[in-house]
Amino acid sequence: MKKYDVVIIGASAAGAVAASTARKFYPDKSICVIREFEQVPIPCGIPYIYGTIGDPMKNLIPVGTMFPNQKIDSVIDIAESIDLEKKVVHGKNEDISYDRLILATGSLPIEPPIKGATLHNVFAIHKNTPYLTKLMEQVKVSQKIVIIGGGFIGVEMAEELKKNNPEHEVTIIEMQDRCLNLVYDKDFCDLAEKELIEQGIRILTQSRVMEIKGKEKVEGILLDNGDVIPADLVILGIGCKANNQLGKLANLKIGPTGGIVVDFYMQTSDPFVFACGDCAEKTSFFDKTPSSLRLASIATMEARVAGSNLFMQHRMNHGVVGCFSTALHGKAFASAGLTSDEAVRKGYQIVIGDAESVNRHPGLMPGSALMKVRLIFEKSEGIIVGGQIFGALSGGELINAISAFISKKMTADDIALFQAGTHPALTASPIAYQLVNAAESASVKLRSFAK
Amino acid sequence: MKKYDVVIIGASAAGAVAASTARKFYPDKSICVIREFEQVPIPCGIPYIYGTIGDPMKNLIPVGTMFPNQKIDSVIDIAESIDLEKKVVHGKNEDISYDRLILATGSLPIEPPIKGATLHNVFAIHKNTPYLTKLMEQVKVSQKIVIIGGGFIGVEMAEELKKNNPEHEVTIIEMQDRCLNLVYDKDFCDLAEKELIEQGIRILTQSRVMEIKGKEKVEGILLDNGDVIPADLVILGIGCKANNQLGKLANLKIGPTGGIVVDFYMQTSDPFVFACGDCAEKTSFFDKTPSSLRLASIATMEARVAGSNLFMQHRMNHGVVGCFSTALHGKAFASAGLTSDEAVRKGYQIVIGDAESVNRHPGLMPGSALMKVRLIFEKSEGIIVGGQIFGALSGGELINAISAFISKKMTADDIALFQAGTHPALTASPIAYQLVNAAESASVKLRSFAK
Repeated sequence: MKKYDVVIIGASAAGAVAASTARKFYPDKSICVIREFEQVPIPCGIPYIYGTIGDPMKNLIPVGTMFPNQKIDSVIDIAESIDLEKKVVHGKNEDISYDRLILATGSLPIEPPIKGATLHNVFAIHKNTPYLTKLMEQVKVSQKIVIIGGGFIGVEMAEELKKNNPEHEVTIIEMQDRCLNLVYDKDFCDLAEKELIEQGIRILTQSRVMEIKGKEKVEGILLDNGDVIPADLVILGIGCKANNQLGKLANLKIGPTGGIVVDFYMQTSDPFVFACGDCAEKTSFFDKTPSSLRLASIATMEARVAGSNLFMQHRMNHGVVGCFSTALHGKAFASAGLTSDEAVRKGYQIVIGDAESVNRHPGLMPGSALMKVRLIFEKSEGIIVGGQIFGALSGGELINAISAFISKKMTADDIALFQAGTHPALTASPIAYQLVNAAESASVKLRSFAK
Repeated sequence: MKKYDVVIIGASAAGAVAASTARKFYPDKSICVIREFEQVPIPCGIPYIYGTIGDPMKNLIPVGTMFPNQKIDSVIDIAESIDLEKKVVHGKNEDISYDRLILATGSLPIEPPIKGATLHNVFAIHKNTPYLTKLMEQVKVSQKIVIIGGGFIGVEMAEELKKNNPEHEVTIIEMQDRCLNLVYDKDFCDLAEKELIEQGIRILTQSRVMEIKGKEKVEGILLDNGDVIPADLVILGIGCKANNQLGKLANLKIGPTGGIVVDFYMQTSDPFVFACGDCAEKTSFFDKTPSSLRLASIATMEARVAGSNLFMQHRMNHGVVGCFSTALHGKAFASAGLTSDEAVRKGYQIVIGDAESVNRHPGLMPGSALMKVRLIFEKSEGIIVGGQIFGALSGGELINAISAFISKKMTADDIALFQAGTHPALTASPIAYQLVNAAESASVKLRSFAK
């Protein structure tokens, strides 16, 4: 039986980063990663396979070349169970013993208990390349595509499928009253929907799917209002759940959102077993309540904590801030922390500062695009709890300044006095700089100077 | 005589922001801005007038339309002296009395005591539109252009003059052993010089100008090695000094770098007079020593402090971080805080973390460009003291995350665990994210795990 100091199950974002972190922190330990497939898709790149990228084989994490450089062994196998007492992972092909184990088994798409969900040509977003290749083949021969769920995956898939072939009739069906409802404020969602509609995508909100109709293959979607939307391909984009199967089998503690419970150090209820990424239970940075957010940026952060703490405590996980972005119709939509609605739901009283400007100065400089920044502050202490950016693509980098503000609990005044680098060819002017001006606007409101 | 609660002298970045801050914090006070010219150029946009923008009249701060909306009066006049006792500004045209005064008189280009510096066709970068228009006219009829000084203004002017007319022979003469020496580490400077040279710009470093030769008009530049560089236009880009004249005349205290001395609240040695922007003395955020940095981002920050404190202390200035960027040959060069050399000069022992990756994932996504991030940490506590970004233009926004890290004294571990938003169409992958990986690299070195 193979023996390793450190065994990691999973080689997507969390597993890969946990392995290389462990290597850096413990140069003398032997490390092995167990992964199910030869190829590991880039999770956030999946929607882009079906348009911009065009091929699942071009959307791969370079796991094969990453590990050998770091003296990390890699085994292709399916881990079927763990013997916590003997400290052994039982694989389909072989058993491997560990001294420390990291579970990075990721998440699985939620497949709803709708009648017809198992018909041919109904796909969820499974993060494995053979499955994604099958979906690609189906996309090529389909015309009427219905996407159930208007979250990130749903809207990105919709845009890419339309880009792939303008003849595609693409419909998004969303239960809530708007797409992207969980991650942006209402007006930002409206902007996003506008961009989608302009590309010829049909959006049906406040619509519940009652049944996926068809004999062998899908033929249509029955909505709660009685309408039937014709479909020859259905994609389920209604979220994901922790892949906790191995943990459950081993009797590790499971949390309220279905993740494997971990402490500040990413240690599970077994002190020799760590978990990180989508399979691990998460708590909010803000109020320490359970969080169902599943993001690669959280997975890699947790992996850096888990990998560092294997044999000695080095780092703590302070909970989920939530920082994410997408690009729709060439415009960035980025968000960090809480939306206004979510902040209010959590019991915060909030003050909002908005600012918008083109991202060049003067505005006629090349590459000029509108950028709108919103910052959301708690009212009594003026500490930032969230922020959103719409417009210029560089917003995808700028959102990380907001993530930094949140993680360091900066106040509106801190940010209003923040020394922002600006340049005519790169950003708005220092007078119009959106980040600072949004904070300044909130700062004035917080002082109750505003009428 | 006109009477105002608040009088502000100067309407560039500092004056304009001080006025609008005063308006927000003191809605009932009367405010007047005295400015010398009808038009105020965007200071950072000046080099771009001579290429990308093409016209000084297209590079203006919209002062005229900014103030009326805010009930701020505006007077075009030259302030000649201040009577601190009577609280009156004596203008060339009229006298105006104040209760609180803000000096935002900016800076003047340094004109070196070189023989020939007053010849025709030798220009400094004066921030006024009539002067800049004269320079534009001269650019149109010149061919051999020599720029003295390889700082920001020098390299940006060089690139734009070449863009304006490929026939222009453009030479930069720099005393130090490389251009942009004060703001970037050596290897970043090398990258910048490479971009300039690729555009056909000639760079002479370690070269001292002994004399500007010519009869009435400039004809050439005599260097310390005896070479004469032919020139029909010379531009001086060797920096600027505080325009402290009004302050000096009024016997306000002047600091070691020539700025008007201010306290944490931007109050000068006269309690009714504030100063902000290039005319004010500055201290380093890091070691509180005098700083000669003059940046619009600092000016606007100081203006937000000064404007808020006029009648009551609301905000403190914690000193100059320094955050700036430029774009050369379509690539961003951005910097925040101290360079490696400057940190060492200040007595810090440092550890550097570097990371580079394309700013998309997978790398074949459209708009993909290399982005390199360097983070510089103090060795004992691991606190960040500086950072630099080279490559993709979105680096111009990302540098502000580094500025936030610095202002909140984040450690390498804080940043390594920072939750960065990433997206295939906007940034590197969460596994390769440069900001986090540069911090992780330093974190490991700081723990002395690295060999």
